[in-house]
Amino acid sequence: MKLVEERIQKDGRILNDDILKVDSFLNHQIDPQLMMDIGQEFARRFANTKADRILTVESSGIAPAVMTGYQLNLPVVFARKHKSLTLPDNVYTADVFSFTKRVNNKIIIDKRFLHQGEKVLIIDDFLANGQAVGGLLDIAQAAGAQIEGVGVVIEKAFQRGQKFLDEHHIHVEALAKITAFDHGKVIFAKD
Amino acid sequence: MKLVEERIQKDGRILNDDILKVDSFLNHQIDPQLMMDIGQEFARRFANTKADRILTVESSGIAPAVMTGYQLNLPVVFARKHKSLTLPDNVYTADVFSFTKRVNNKIIIDKRFLHQGEKVLIIDDFLANGQAVGGLLDIAQAAGAQIEGVGVVIEKAFQRGQKFLDEHHIHVEALAKITAFDHGKVIFAKD
Repeated sequence: MKLVEERIQKDGRILNDDILKVDSFLNHQIDPQLMMDIGQEFARRFANTKADRILTVESSGIAPAVMTGYQLNLPVVFARKHKSLTLPDNVYTADVFSFTKRVNNKIIIDKRFLHQGEKVLIIDDFLANGQAVGGLLDIAQAAGAQIEGVGVVIEKAFQRGQKFLDEHHIHVEALAKITAFDHGKVIFAKD
Repeated sequence: MKLVEERIQKDGRILNDDILKVDSFLNHQIDPQLMMDIGQEFARRFANTKADRILTVESSGIAPAVMTGYQLNLPVVFARKHKSLTLPDNVYTADVFSFTKRVNNKIIIDKRFLHQGEKVLIIDDFLANGQAVGGLLDIAQAAGAQIEGVGVVIEKAFQRGQKFLDEHHIHVEALAKITAFDHGKVIFAKD
């Protein structure tokens, strides 16, 4: 999606070989018009995907997921990162390791919001190593739900996420697919 | 706003004299159509408010804030709850006590996204004791920014938030204003 690539070129900041900061429009400050465009694009790409709901992870996934849910007329469930030692009752849970922050997060979804036999679409801001999606996959499997597709705003294609999802036969749509950072420049995959 | 009151009557769950759970449409599962209606209503109520950006706090404030930002064509900045002991550089920070979870959270906003002399609108899911808004107020004051108004989806008017904001001469718009929980029923303020 040209719009996302252009915005990354304009406002993204490369911190090192791994980390692209997009906190001026996606995950700290949010550009709501861009989020709506992103929601429309995911809705177009997943128009033929039957889904009962959208899953994402707090907090950065919420804005693109809600706009996609608005376009597809689907409820959005965001997994919460769970901090306390005691788990509430009746939740699905999975472990997600954040390479950026070097911490292990437990994510949880209330069992009232994901049911056996349901089809789900995952929307998130980034696909890097596939940790967040992997956690949602664990939860979907525990619930007996089926992942119909994954949509990410930005994929870092040089990390392991795509391979991980291929191994699980899960279709991915990335609006901007980054193949490398080269001397402070972002290189995108050719369409 | 009738739509929000009706949804609370239909899907809200009163856990005790203090806590109303609205996790089936607002802060765990999200109804995107309702969020758009909420965004439109806040945009109507704050149509004459001059603001440079919208502030909220992750995670539950993001969906209504982004829809309001979409309608008012304003960027949205969500304060992050900060977990690690070391603070990143160049952030505004404030302490927010959560009565529900009985924990103290530090919230942070990057200094690049809030500037002296700016006018801001705060959008959040709940106004209860005013802790979250108080944290954003501290940050706005530190930045030299001015809060032009606060919009909350649900106000628990029997708690201290309204009084706190009155003392700071801050105008509040609540889409559903709850005066009491009475034998498992939600009582709303008369318009």
